[in-house]
Amino acid sequence: MSPKEIKIMQKILNLNDQIATDLQKELRKRGIVFINLMSSPGSGKTRLLERTAEQLNSRIFVIEGDIQTTLDSERLARAGIGVYQINTGPFGGDCHLEAGWIRTALSEINLAGIEFLFVENIGNLVCPAEFDLGAHINAVVLSVTEGEDKPLKYPLAFRTSQLCLISKLDLLPHLELDLELMKANIRKINPAIRIIELSSQTGQGLKEWLDFLAACRRG
Amino acid sequence: MSPKEIKIMQKILNLNDQIATDLQKELRKRGIVFINLMSSPGSGKTRLLERTAEQLNSRIFVIEGDIQTTLDSERLARAGIGVYQINTGPFGGDCHLEAGWIRTALSEINLAGIEFLFVENIGNLVCPAEFDLGAHINAVVLSVTEGEDKPLKYPLAFRTSQLCLISKLDLLPHLELDLELMKANIRKINPAIRIIELSSQTGQGLKEWLDFLAACRRG
Repeated sequence: MSPKEIKIMQKILNLNDQIATDLQKELRKRGIVFINLMSSPGSGKTRLLERTAEQLNSRIFVIEGDIQTTLDSERLARAGIGVYQINTGPFGGDCHLEAGWIRTALSEINLAGIEFLFVENIGNLVCPAEFDLGAHINAVVLSVTEGEDKPLKYPLAFRTSQLCLISKLDLLPHLELDLELMKANIRKINPAIRIIELSSQTGQGLKEWLDFLAACRRG
Repeated sequence: MSPKEIKIMQKILNLNDQIATDLQKELRKRGIVFINLMSSPGSGKTRLLERTAEQLNSRIFVIEGDIQTTLDSERLARAGIGVYQINTGPFGGDCHLEAGWIRTALSEINLAGIEFLFVENIGNLVCPAEFDLGAHINAVVLSVTEGEDKPLKYPLAFRTSQLCLISKLDLLPHLELDLELMKANIRKINPAIRIIELSSQTGQGLKEWLDFLAACRRG
């Protein structure tokens, strides 16, 4: 790679970070907590948002990132949540979201009465973590089906997050997973991270998650 | 994005494809079947290779792609498999492998007696599918825990694969998954794809997988 190409990438990242900083400030001023959910495909992000909406309904808004389809948006709309879909397919199938796209989305969304803005990032444990969106809380969702070693193998998402949601706890009895080792691996990458264990299926941990959200809004 | 930047990306992709074509021809000439395994993190690629090694042991070699750690290589080495680790961490934590890296790896590997070369790609259902490695078989692994909709949401990996391995079948009784819908969605993206359902845990489907490999070698 020539120095020129590195310079181009640097420029894009600097611009992204500037927009992210502005978004973070603006949403804080408006009293809206901005949470960026990142994970592998199929970790249960959409299902968690459906469960969250049952409690917070019209107080939350979701910006949904997908390469293709509006399947998740349709699920959330059925749950009565305001939702804005970003499809990256027409832009080369991008594997992550960028702060500029969130800014564009927000310019078209009415956030009156909204207390929590969620971004459901593209299902990818690698690339989204490289792009700061300006979220107040980056939350990485890790399903118990993915194995204990994933925090060590994909460290950036865990390093850049303030919260790790360990999902699908209901499947634990059917797996050989060592949950304590999974948590130790998460903390090896990020000693300060808050971990919440939950199951959208059984409701386990949902109260802790909602309490966490309420505390973010107060703080 | 300026036309200049698009041109740079084009050039890199053209070079990658040329190397991929050369690799494919060279390995065919040497009678080695080259299989590129792609999937989300935690779908069971390494476990499947461990099970495959129990049957094919010294006839297989694995090039292991990871951003960080040599955890998977160590597991495979314990299973008695020849393995070469590519860590992308020092190169900016790349989210995929490229054909040039496979070529470099092969220049350092003794393939005498090897019948099957596997690449275990980086756990990412998006980006690896954009880079042709020259494999004779691209195989996408999809765990039943990931949900029916994933082929529609991440179509490129399914479109560029000749084989889809549906993994972790043993967990099916504990999920709300509609397996027929998952298969219909896979075929909606790629009507010609071969689907094998398996469980490395119970051994279900492993004979079909080994028969598939043997047929690739004959054909």
